Amino acid sequence: MRITALAGGVGGARFLRGLLHGMATGLVPEADVTVIGNTGDDIWVHGLRVCPDLDTVMYTLGGGISEERGWGREAETFTAKDELAAYGVEPAWFGLGDRDIATHLVRTQSLNSGYALSDVTAALCARWQPGVTLLPMSDQRAETHVIVDDPSGACDDLGNPMQIAIHFQEWWIRWRASIPAHGFTVIGMEDARPAPGVLEAIESADLILFPPSNPIVSIGTILQVSGVREAIIRTAAPVIGVSPIIGGRPVHGMADACLQAVGIDTTAEAVARNYGSDLLDGWLVDTSDSDVVSKVESLGIQCVAVPLLMSDLDATAAMAARAIDLANLTRA
Amino acid sequence: MRITALAGGVGGARFLRGLLHGMATGLVPEADVTVIGNTGDDIWVHGLRVCPDLDTVMYTLGGGISEERGWGREAETFTAKDELAAYGVEPAWFGLGDRDIATHLVRTQSLNSGYALSDVTAALCARWQPGVTLLPMSDQRAETHVIVDDPSGACDDLGNPMQIAIHFQEWWIRWRASIPAHGFTVIGMEDARPAPGVLEAIESADLILFPPSNPIVSIGTILQVSGVREAIIRTAAPVIGVSPIIGGRPVHGMADACLQAVGIDTTAEAVARNYGSDLLDGWLVDTSDSDVVSKVESLGIQCVAVPLLMSDLDATAAMAARAIDLANLTRA
Repeated sequence: MRITALAGGVGGARFLRGLLHGMATGLVPEADVTVIGNTGDDIWVHGLRVCPDLDTVMYTLGGGISEERGWGREAETFTAKDELAAYGVEPAWFGLGDRDIATHLVRTQSLNSGYALSDVTAALCARWQPGVTLLPMSDQRAETHVIVDDPSGACDDLGNPMQIAIHFQEWWIRWRASIPAHGFTVIGMEDARPAPGVLEAIESADLILFPPSNPIVSIGTILQVSGVREAIIRTAAPVIGVSPIIGGRPVHGMADACLQAVGIDTTAEAVARNYGSDLLDGWLVDTSDSDVVSKVESLGIQCVAVPLLMSDLDATAAMAARAIDLANLTRA
Repeated sequence: MRITALAGGVGGARFLRGLLHGMATGLVPEADVTVIGNTGDDIWVHGLRVCPDLDTVMYTLGGGISEERGWGREAETFTAKDELAAYGVEPAWFGLGDRDIATHLVRTQSLNSGYALSDVTAALCARWQPGVTLLPMSDQRAETHVIVDDPSGACDDLGNPMQIAIHFQEWWIRWRASIPAHGFTVIGMEDARPAPGVLEAIESADLILFPPSNPIVSIGTILQVSGVREAIIRTAAPVIGVSPIIGGRPVHGMADACLQAVGIDTTAEAVARNYGSDLLDGWLVDTSDSDVVSKVESLGIQCVAVPLLMSDLDATAAMAARAIDLANLTRA
């Protein structure tokens, strides 16, 4: 079996780790897994190319992630970050760990030498052996920006707040998504092509998974890459999503702020509706959201309620198994 | 008074610290000090621009140096270096500290943004406040390479060892200068111009100092920059050198290997002879080398024997004071 998953950061990475754990323990059938990672929140920081979502997947599946934070390396230190702050260089709010810096140095030097991000990602994975084929959604730079009222309070001649676009990472980390977002724009997306292997991984998949990643700025961004949405709609393989919303709250991160920005309710049903039945064949919601099952099914999307809290590896593997069960149901 | 010093790394930096200490304690008259730093051992490592000698001067005079090593930062950690090794990327032999990396990141990003090394050096010094004006010898890349027999043992058709040029840092750090050098070549030197302020600092100086830096690959390299040697010969200011050789051995580092490579004896006299009386007006040797005083004087260079071991700040300040005494003698 071939499984292709779209993934953002922490939520997606943890789900995928559960999927692999399920395979290792026999709960889930063996499969070749390809992960198409979001690169919309990539950023140049202090001259380093940082790919937070790719690294979160790579570190999580490769055994190097900080369990406590969910991002970055275990046993991390932040010496260089403190030194950069002592030089007074911006951004001071980005969490650049000393271990992590090595990854960024290898990546940046390779990119500057002319290698594509997909090549560099494969080279980094040669060390981490994540157990999946990890592909960036695109080798081109396409970075999510957030439309916000200028945090400095600047207004136009009529006294209306000036809107500016700030990098997603600035909104997410510096402002903790606390500034209301008017929307998102992915700068460079019009020229972004799927990275080598991305469309093939969708077309050849027996199952496509949307893990509980951010539906707007993670999976939503991947779906904007030219041809990706169309390939997923076209494929005969079942497309199964796992709700990132449980009981009206995001499982991880601040997806509610993203959903709010684009006018979508923070509910498991609204997220399924946003993906739509042209993309989704099946949708897993948490048992606490079992009241939405019939509403989702009325959209033409098969839906089951199962425990979705990724409390440990076994629980997460069980979730992955239920996603595969649901895929089989949709095939029937 | 205006003092201009040429400097390499550890030896030069420690002497300069003593000079400033002498000023602070009244042992040496107040002066504006400009340091022309060797950039011949600069290197690109993992995509970072590293300037070992400039940083050694900056950290030493700015209070950030590791006293134990003499180079790099105090309380340094090497987490990123270990991680780079885990990725298997070369060079693994370069000591890239986590604190130090911040300096290199700021420098590299600024250089890549189009700033000149002299501008970047000034910006870094805004944090460190070294108490001197620190100038790179040149804004152009000019890197010392060492001609050695190929360490792999490769031979030509006649069975003679193949000679190759390796970067000075590779010879110095990786091979600990243990491979015999046939000579040095500074790649890029033909296009290197003095950095802004370098010639002016020589021309306007009341005193020019050659600290006990490596006479071949530190001060010797600075002297190769177009116009520098000529400006020093031309100036009316006394030029006073401090022997880096005491009792036939280098005070610090492996200057003997460099001297040997260019056929110069490792003696205080031979180093003075190599600089020559067209450059030097005065030469300080250690009291243990007092037998060479008359030989150096026969070269037309005034010479005195004084204690040259930089055992502490006061001893080093006393050395600097004796250098200034000797300058006054040459003026008389």
